[in-house]
Amino acid sequence: MYHIISVLSLSLKRILFYISKAEKFKKENISYDILKNKTLVNIFFEPSTRTSCSFQTAMIKLGGNIINITEQFSSTQKGESLQDTIKTVTSYGDIIVLRHPQKGAAQIAANVSSIPLINAGDGNGEHPTQALLDIFTIKTELIKFNLDICSKDRNDIVVTFVGDLKNSRTIHSLIHILCLFPKITFNFINPRGLEMPVEIINKLNWHNIIFIEEVKLEEALKTTDVLYVTRIQKERFETEQEYNTIMLENKYIINNNILQHAKEKMIIMHPLPRVNEIHVDVDRDPRAVYFEQVKNGVYMRMAILDSILNQ
Amino acid sequence: MYHIISVLSLSLKRILFYISKAEKFKKENISYDILKNKTLVNIFFEPSTRTSCSFQTAMIKLGGNIINITEQFSSTQKGESLQDTIKTVTSYGDIIVLRHPQKGAAQIAANVSSIPLINAGDGNGEHPTQALLDIFTIKTELIKFNLDICSKDRNDIVVTFVGDLKNSRTIHSLIHILCLFPKITFNFINPRGLEMPVEIINKLNWHNIIFIEEVKLEEALKTTDVLYVTRIQKERFETEQEYNTIMLENKYIINNNILQHAKEKMIIMHPLPRVNEIHVDVDRDPRAVYFEQVKNGVYMRMAILDSILNQ
Amino acid sequence: MYHIISVLSLSLKRILFYISKAEKFKKENISYDILKNKTLVNIFFEPSTRTSCSFQTAMIKLGGNIINITEQFSSTQKGESLQDTIKTVTSYGDIIVLRHPQKGAAQIAANVSSIPLINAGDGNGEHPTQALLDIFTIKTELIKFNLDICSKDRNDIVVTFVGDLKNSRTIHSLIHILCLFPKITFNFINPRGLEMPVEIINKLNWHNIIFIEEVKLEEALKTTDVLYVTRIQKERFETEQEYNTIMLENKYIINNNILQHAKEKMIIMHPLPRVNEIHVDVDRDPRAVYFEQVKNGVYMRMAILDSILNQ
Repeated sequence: MYHIISVLSLSLKRILFYISKAEKFKKENISYDILKNKTLVNIFFEPSTRTSCSFQTAMIKLGGNIINITEQFSSTQKGESLQDTIKTVTSYGDIIVLRHPQKGAAQIAANVSSIPLINAGDGNGEHPTQALLDIFTIKTELIKFNLDICSKDRNDIVVTFVGDLKNSRTIHSLIHILCLFPKITFNFINPRGLEMPVEIINKLNWHNIIFIEEVKLEEALKTTDVLYVTRIQKERFETEQEYNTIMLENKYIINNNILQHAKEKMIIMHPLPRVNEIHVDVDRDPRAVYFEQVKNGVYMRMAILDSILNQ
Repeated sequence: MYHIISVLSLSLKRILFYISKAEKFKKENISYDILKNKTLVNIFFEPSTRTSCSFQTAMIKLGGNIINITEQFSSTQKGESLQDTIKTVTSYGDIIVLRHPQKGAAQIAANVSSIPLINAGDGNGEHPTQALLDIFTIKTELIKFNLDICSKDRNDIVVTFVGDLKNSRTIHSLIHILCLFPKITFNFINPRGLEMPVEIINKLNWHNIIFIEEVKLEEALKTTDVLYVTRIQKERFETEQEYNTIMLENKYIINNNILQHAKEKMIIMHPLPRVNEIHVDVDRDPRAVYFEQVKNGVYMRMAILDSILNQ
Repeated sequence: MYHIISVLSLSLKRILFYISKAEKFKKENISYDILKNKTLVNIFFEPSTRTSCSFQTAMIKLGGNIINITEQFSSTQKGESLQDTIKTVTSYGDIIVLRHPQKGAAQIAANVSSIPLINAGDGNGEHPTQALLDIFTIKTELIKFNLDICSKDRNDIVVTFVGDLKNSRTIHSLIHILCLFPKITFNFINPRGLEMPVEIINKLNWHNIIFIEEVKLEEALKTTDVLYVTRIQKERFETEQEYNTIMLENKYIINNNILQHAKEKMIIMHPLPRVNEIHVDVDRDPRAVYFEQVKNGVYMRMAILDSILNQ
């Protein structure tokens, strides 16, 4: 049985396999009948346009079927355990995609599932398919600049993370994957109190991976190849004033002005949805690839679903 | 790119093309594989059984796929803009159907959409596909009485609108379409304060189209060919008593009693859902075609989807 | 027109026909194209993972299409009557599955429906397809012990119902079906105030069917062939303490301990979702068939949909 719960269990070989498969699907850009008799059970206990629709689209393009379950419309309202829900839905499909508000829920669910299960986000835990579509985007975008992320014979690739580095499961998962590639260095830019968790810092130290904290955004941009921005949630601050002060200083907002400090050949990423971290004017900048990430998400999920269900 | 945002941009030729296509689909009454590899992204930011299901049914009958997005289950809850939602979902399908509570939202969405977009109702703005299914119903029902809505060599066709004429986007869109046909005259029957908007009145005056306001329902029925009824919402009145008085006087309620004043060859329409504007006894009257409108809605939407996606 | 509203209108012959069809589908365990051009309109005015998904899965496995309608997203919010909703959706599909909170709603809906309608639960009324999957499970599981539920040449089959016997529509429907088979006897075990309704008791007396009330669970288990457990809802008790007392005494909780009193060849059933009526340790007991019931639900609904739509 092949579940995808955490990026930590993904080998570099497996990741590159998914990427090459996703590239193939993207190049062909057609619909298939491959999964004609397979059904995806899509369980979302939290709202999510992007991830839910992305998996649905992937399944549709492969010719498969979908059953959608949301919390407001399910037996958990009657007090059913997650395990019972999972054991039940294994009768309804061939693979489960689960989004759940609690960290660890995906593993608990996988433990009782007789069909493959994909973690589509478990609280502030992990979101492995987002990390996979991100690395797919990084690899294919950088190759356009003749930067091969797999090569050891090149200069360092600099990845700068901006925003709430403490709570972003997307960023944590992506860093774990990036650690598998050679010569990646990091900048971490975040409001006080939203620092990268100590486990990540320890891992980077252990592997002798270079990272710089408390660097200014303008400074970091000069060498950045990949700028990865995430939402800073108001609720994380003690007062709204504190939040407004930080945001008004534009320390963490990406706009055309600040991008004058960036290289010509670099990319700007965001897992979306965005609120105001990236100004809409930036959308027209050819370096902005966040809507390309959305597109790549469909192809990566096609690669994952096809790999697991056609084993 | 072909969007359907407003009836104002629909030519008579285009409307007749849709009608003839819808008639063909209705006559054949089978399922197709025409849109096998196409996906409709159905975004409903307001509840609607009828319009949402009608589009879904049309897509299913053409062999296509559907992805449903509702507000309570989307990233707008996280503060995402409508534009970002639209740019995102263009990766998920080949056409967007959008229902939104704000007037003008469909145009805003279409401006950033790289795939065709159909306005399925934007607040008190427009609802063009409802108007198209209505004109389809009017044309095909009247022809049974040898009344050709396109012909100039016939007597006037009298269309009587009853109900909340101020806020009904359905009626406004339909009037714009009816103005393209020759020799249509109107009766407007409404509670005080819910009059037809001045833009519509000005347009009718400009085109020298005859309309009568403040006519009594019994009087109007004597010459009416098409009686179009809409809901009168309680909330529009200052007091519930005011509402009750008006409704109890039966001034705006269609029942078998009042229909004794109507011609034998005429039709009774309603966009549905109805509350009590038309008594259920009327459902058995052969002149009542409001459930036929529902049926026609599917065929008209098949015509629209097929026309746009098979261009 | 063939509706399924109540088990009372199902003949033994019809039930056995469904069972044999469900068995065939279960044995073949493949996907079909039989209902390729048919659409199921799935209307759930109450939450239900199991029943809704089970019908959807059945339809998918038969190659058919689905349109889902839920109350929070429908025109009933605008005051539309159930009858109008039903008359409307007959334009969208070929069969309706309806779950509604009010007893009798399914019959009211069927009366105005021009397409077949299946009652998927109407308040504390009936839930006939659950009863059909239950009898399918009982028949196929007992035959493994060489117990043929149809045979007159065998000892009595003892069915023990535990839990809220007053409000469980599932149990009421199943008893009506079991009365069609020879030599079934019953034990009823319930908290005070949640007794089997008098209509059921009268029916059993009328047919001279043996049943025992107020028996102790340990005692009943000694001869039980089918143990059918349902949820006891806290809300049914005057005080939470009263509920806790009853539950703590383990009078109505099935665990490995109490199952030592049960026969080796018997089965444990539950319509699910469960809260704590059956301890999770029991799941590994080969006598526990409640997740097999879920599986059987799909095959029984395939049998029902295929029978009705391929008439």
